[in-house]
Amino acid sequence: MNNFNDISIVGLGLIGGSFALNLKRGGFKGKISAVDLNPSTIDKGISLGIIDNGDTSGEVLKSSDLIVIATPVGTYKSVLETIKKKTCNKKEKFIVTDLGSVKGNLVYLCEKELYGIAKFVGGHPIAGTEKSGVENSVPDLFKGAKFIITPTENTDKTAKRKIKQLWKQLGSEVIEMNPFYHDKIFASVSHLPHIVAYSIVDTIDILSANLGENLFGFTGGGFKDFTRIAMSDPVMWRDICFENKENILETIKVFKETLSTIENLIEKNDRENLRNFFEIARTKRNRIK
Amino acid sequence: MNNFNDISIVGLGLIGGSFALNLKRGGFKGKISAVDLNPSTIDKGISLGIIDNGDTSGEVLKSSDLIVIATPVGTYKSVLETIKKKTCNKKEKFIVTDLGSVKGNLVYLCEKELYGIAKFVGGHPIAGTEKSGVENSVPDLFKGAKFIITPTENTDKTAKRKIKQLWKQLGSEVIEMNPFYHDKIFASVSHLPHIVAYSIVDTIDILSANLGENLFGFTGGGFKDFTRIAMSDPVMWRDICFENKENILETIKVFKETLSTIENLIEKNDRENLRNFFEIARTKRNRIK
Repeated sequence: MNNFNDISIVGLGLIGGSFALNLKRGGFKGKISAVDLNPSTIDKGISLGIIDNGDTSGEVLKSSDLIVIATPVGTYKSVLETIKKKTCNKKEKFIVTDLGSVKGNLVYLCEKELYGIAKFVGGHPIAGTEKSGVENSVPDLFKGAKFIITPTENTDKTAKRKIKQLWKQLGSEVIEMNPFYHDKIFASVSHLPHIVAYSIVDTIDILSANLGENLFGFTGGGFKDFTRIAMSDPVMWRDICFENKENILETIKVFKETLSTIENLIEKNDRENLRNFFEIARTKRNRIK
Repeated sequence: MNNFNDISIVGLGLIGGSFALNLKRGGFKGKISAVDLNPSTIDKGISLGIIDNGDTSGEVLKSSDLIVIATPVGTYKSVLETIKKKTCNKKEKFIVTDLGSVKGNLVYLCEKELYGIAKFVGGHPIAGTEKSGVENSVPDLFKGAKFIITPTENTDKTAKRKIKQLWKQLGSEVIEMNPFYHDKIFASVSHLPHIVAYSIVDTIDILSANLGENLFGFTGGGFKDFTRIAMSDPVMWRDICFENKENILETIKVFKETLSTIENLIEKNDRENLRNFFEIARTKRNRIK
């Protein structure tokens, strides 16, 4: 953390807020600022003691030696414009990193837009909750969690080392990964499950209308756990769907095929293979620590 | 509970075991026996103090005034045969009830097979965990939970009243429902989500093979919650799929249509409607208490 003295977070939501909170809890002695379109978010962050100051226009970016983009991935273009505009007279070197759930082309976009201006290092902390907002910031959110760092052939080695150190100090396990490979992995284990969770809630809504019964009144604890991630931020997830479009469409395709497999087993009364299907899935799920 | 003196549970798993455990905790003074194909399950139940005695053949059924079927729904035919065989010389009246997740035709099957032998009342406690086995029996599992009782035009009123009383004493909210209507509701809110959870684990497994990477190593807390129900008993869920086949196939159809809706929105870059889709799902999910 002592690689930096003045950190600005763009987008003070649950992830940006948790990042600030855990910097402070981890003993970071420098200044932490935030930029957010919503002035009341800045006020909340200050009164919660999570940030030292902030604004809606990006003035605070002028003095930062580290800028952390923590907005939905659909906003990156305009965030990069703001960063460029606010830092055009800056003489000191600075680093820009991000906490976005999609990397791939976005990392190259950041590199291109910031070329000659700042060193960019892409990252993605594998942590979060279904809640939103700085007021839901979580102590120790990143402790023990994976942090995926996605350098490219253009990434500055010193900047990468500093970002790695920062996340290790927050308690994360840092994993280096190609940004496009990252997007394939998280389309599967994160993006698809979120889409499925939203879909199943929509399905229950449609089936409620068909039956003329509020089916949500009959859900139990299993359903609640199962659909918890459907309470996640819609704008964040909308943006992820478009930024990781091809990979996500591919995972939906495979998922629909497995559903068809189950449908066929049920239709054909194939008791043995349906049991095996469930048994294998259970075994795989049991193995997750 | 004082309507009964000698209760036998057929199938001492998590649900049957929890039923016995909570009878005892609720002050039931009579005898509780169990029948289970696995002798070590009986031994476990006795040593845990959950049941008083039991056997693998069904001898204990001879003295019961209440028999509770708590086996997977695919076993009902053979369980009914055992009950009939063991109680053929019985003079005292007795009641048979069940705890199965599918009702509909199964309730009529039980009525038909037990006609002139015992009074049957179908039931389904909306409670459970993803675990299995008597050793995972849960104190207060049914407290505050719904218990669906599914009488038919043939159901004996006194028997129904006694079963209702029993579940109220266990702390459940008793809801009367047509057995076929029950199956439509739980195909939606319980059976479909379990199938989807198993399917998504299978999908991650296929995608792991495609990518040559163990994707399960990259799952986070959201994925764990999301797939917890995929750790449920495969035989129980296999049986549910076949006993509630038509309703389940219908819910899978609707679910695949909502997935196609999302696919289309992503393909067409329809940002506004995809956000709305997620927003509406989130709002519906947030309303679940």
